[in-house]
Amino acid sequence: MEGQQVRALYEFKGEPGTAELSINAGEILTVMRDNVGDGWCEGFNESGQSGLFPAAYVQVVEAAAPITGQTQPYVPPVQQHQMIQPAQPHTVDYGDIVSMHTIHSVIPERPISNVPKKNNKFSTLIKSGEDSFLLGTKLLNVPDSEKVFIDEVEGGRCTWVPTGESYNCVVTSPKKESKLKGLKSFIVYQLTPTFNNIQVSRRYKHFDWLHERLEEKFCFIPIPPLPDKQISGRYEEQFIEHRRTQLQEFVDYVCRHPVLSRSRVWEHFMTCTDEKRWKAGKRQAEKDELLGVNYFNAIQCADLPPLDPIKVEIETDAFSRFISGLDPVVKNFMAVAVDQTKKHQVLYKREFQKIGQSFTALGHALEADDSSRGRLTHALKMTGDAYNEIGRLYEEQPKFDWEPLGDKFHIYRGIISSFPDVISIHKSAVQKRRDSERLVSEHKMEPQQLQDLCIRTDVITRALMAEETHFQSEREIHINQAMKNHLVEQINFYQKIVNKLQEALATYDG
Amino acid sequence: MEGQQVRALYEFKGEPGTAELSINAGEILTVMRDNVGDGWCEGFNESGQSGLFPAAYVQVVEAAAPITGQTQPYVPPVQQHQMIQPAQPHTVDYGDIVSMHTIHSVIPERPISNVPKKNNKFSTLIKSGEDSFLLGTKLLNVPDSEKVFIDEVEGGRCTWVPTGESYNCVVTSPKKESKLKGLKSFIVYQLTPTFNNIQVSRRYKHFDWLHERLEEKFCFIPIPPLPDKQISGRYEEQFIEHRRTQLQEFVDYVCRHPVLSRSRVWEHFMTCTDEKRWKAGKRQAEKDELLGVNYFNAIQCADLPPLDPIKVEIETDAFSRFISGLDPVVKNFMAVAVDQTKKHQVLYKREFQKIGQSFTALGHALEADDSSRGRLTHALKMTGDAYNEIGRLYEEQPKFDWEPLGDKFHIYRGIISSFPDVISIHKSAVQKRRDSERLVSEHKMEPQQLQDLCIRTDVITRALMAEETHFQSEREIHINQAMKNHLVEQINFYQKIVNKLQEALATYDG
Repeated sequence: MEGQQVRALYEFKGEPGTAELSINAGEILTVMRDNVGDGWCEGFNESGQSGLFPAAYVQVVEAAAPITGQTQPYVPPVQQHQMIQPAQPHTVDYGDIVSMHTIHSVIPERPISNVPKKNNKFSTLIKSGEDSFLLGTKLLNVPDSEKVFIDEVEGGRCTWVPTGESYNCVVTSPKKESKLKGLKSFIVYQLTPTFNNIQVSRRYKHFDWLHERLEEKFCFIPIPPLPDKQISGRYEEQFIEHRRTQLQEFVDYVCRHPVLSRSRVWEHFMTCTDEKRWKAGKRQAEKDELLGVNYFNAIQCADLPPLDPIKVEIETDAFSRFISGLDPVVKNFMAVAVDQTKKHQVLYKREFQKIGQSFTALGHALEADDSSRGRLTHALKMTGDAYNEIGRLYEEQPKFDWEPLGDKFHIYRGIISSFPDVISIHKSAVQKRRDSERLVSEHKMEPQQLQDLCIRTDVITRALMAEETHFQSEREIHINQAMKNHLVEQINFYQKIVNKLQEALATYDG
Repeated sequence: MEGQQVRALYEFKGEPGTAELSINAGEILTVMRDNVGDGWCEGFNESGQSGLFPAAYVQVVEAAAPITGQTQPYVPPVQQHQMIQPAQPHTVDYGDIVSMHTIHSVIPERPISNVPKKNNKFSTLIKSGEDSFLLGTKLLNVPDSEKVFIDEVEGGRCTWVPTGESYNCVVTSPKKESKLKGLKSFIVYQLTPTFNNIQVSRRYKHFDWLHERLEEKFCFIPIPPLPDKQISGRYEEQFIEHRRTQLQEFVDYVCRHPVLSRSRVWEHFMTCTDEKRWKAGKRQAEKDELLGVNYFNAIQCADLPPLDPIKVEIETDAFSRFISGLDPVVKNFMAVAVDQTKKHQVLYKREFQKIGQSFTALGHALEADDSSRGRLTHALKMTGDAYNEIGRLYEEQPKFDWEPLGDKFHIYRGIISSFPDVISIHKSAVQKRRDSERLVSEHKMEPQQLQDLCIRTDVITRALMAEETHFQSEREIHINQAMKNHLVEQINFYQKIVNKLQEALATYDG
């Protein structure tokens, strides 16, 4: 839809300080680029402000054409020459998917390209490393402890084979500590794994270090993001407690992941109590050579049958589209959660306190002539108190519903935005395989070499498929649970309001 | 805060196609008018766009002043000369009320647009007429049918003696009618008194005529105000239905009033079905001489003992203070009701629909890869629907709670703002009595004349006292009832939200 005019179907709030453009439902925008990637469009509004907005939130303006589920809207013949035709899918055919669930006629008709590269510094490294792995020119000796296994379950789904008992790790008691005689202060969190019940102390900077190691080591696993760094207010009680719950979300995701939860660096992070051993372990992790594409050497799926390249392509394309469709939606969902948190804490609280005040003021004003009529005055003041209390409930509530939901979606947002990189590793392996097939047909490569390469391509593909399976189970279990928690807390909240109002009502006469 | 710079505390999105101005938190605006009414300000932003925004969303820009509960923020002396001082309330002194319960420093410090003062043109007329009555120079012959009686009950309280059975009058079925072959169209309301069950048709302009007659005739009774005149949107269904309920409030107040409910002009208005008699009755009412201060001739309290002037002064002063303390509070209360009505219909509705959309969008996005996992997608869509429905509930709700409360308080606000005029008639009679006492002491007036004048002064005072008693019983019964209705409806509303969310929760797995 480049160059075309589109109408915003929904409101979208751009994140301040980014290139995102806030759009209002109904407003007309002009699209400058529709291949920005991950479901984003670039364009400008009628006031000339430009920026990025979700492609799924807009619809091509069609001259009096009815909105239907068709991909190609009906265009009256006389107008066809005046219209810019909607761009055809460049690399992806949405065909079936669009007709399967057309909600709006606006599912992005554009190729998915991956914008924010996770580790751009690694990408050439990855490319050459990947080639070495595929060609078998750099085969590493992997110790048993580092090996990870993939299995195939019903329907051909690949899964990571879990090793050992599942466990949790609880993040508790953030404490302010200092060193250099108080010149430097920081927050220390306590981590206690359930398998040994031994507590370790870690700072945010240690989490940050761990995160870097995990990203380096597991290029085929989207690593959950840490909470954003923050400078101001970081010693405030509320902030610290919130950060604790955010770190708990991160830790939970790692513990639930069959590969990450067994990784050496994570185990070191979570269990090492001795300062000396901690430092040694850190050095060792930083020198670890079994990382990035090299780690494919550690993936074991020897007994599994070869994959059907065509089936793989269809499936990974579908998954890729799924992820890029999810990206702006999850981002917006998170924005709504953050927005609601803020509105409850400030705006709604104030509204209810304003209401409370008006009842209280009325009670006071009537009191002035009310020696024998104390009941109404009293009831009005009680009503004022009830609304004030409701204001306080609004202020407190987000930490039970919108804030945890926002934290949960912060994790998934990070996972989703990392997936395109993971997918591109697979795509590049598939390309290498195609190139090699051509080379073999041109007798420039030995068939045996191709056969080995295919086995290794399958390893990369299966890693992606196992990650996909893991993500789907996360969604099935944990998004489901998060939504339920949210609703339960919302119900409690509105029930509390009902109760407060009922208490106020009971103070009236008659 | 007119002419002042203010900082937006919150984001506010103006509704497209209205005069509302979208503002962003933190941005600086210049206020052009702060008396637009109902909590709105008019001003422009730094790009020069102008429009309306909620006064409660902005705060006067103060140079480095901390936000405290004080009404007057601290201003560093060196900066005082550069600053425009926040405008003081124009006509209303919030004094005690503000300091008694200040919650934020942003409560609009301005009077809510005033109900026009009743009949200033009558005041000199009233003054001279009152003197004639007090001096007995103009004694009218009052037919029995026009006589009203005052009695004294326990504690020396005066009351109007009710005559006849109490009744109601129902306002129903507003219909659009037209005349001059459709050139002129108007709304006709049906009135049905319970004592005869005969329906009459009346237009707003008839109500307006009636209101004028009542104000003319009963200078010692605060007449309940009609709903405000409105030009735009007056044929819209919602507007018409709301106007009907507002007229019902007016009619209810008249029916409950022992004097107004028996007045001839009101009976004519409420019962006359014949066009010819209607016109004759109108002419008669317009020629009625028994009006204004003359009507004091109709007040009968012959057998009651003389009043103690000092006790009267103490009591009426207390009542006067009570009324003037109530005035800003009731205005503010009404403003809150109007503001909440609007916020529910626009802002909150939109917020919930935005939440609903984000759940629906997430459901759709997850559906794309969800052949076997329909449950979560379904549940998310149901959740989206639930929040959308809640948005709709917010839009509808005000007509059950805030709107009726606002309408009720529109009536009391009018009554309260009319009381000072009624009180001043009494005050002027008391002054006349004092003047006469001096004249008698100076032998410039006969003691018998003073004695007669005192009896007539007592009539005026007793009329005020009877009105006070009536107002207190209104408050005791009808404000009490209105508050209870409001709370019951609020409870129903939040209970409905709870139910919607529970329905959504039931669609989740596990």
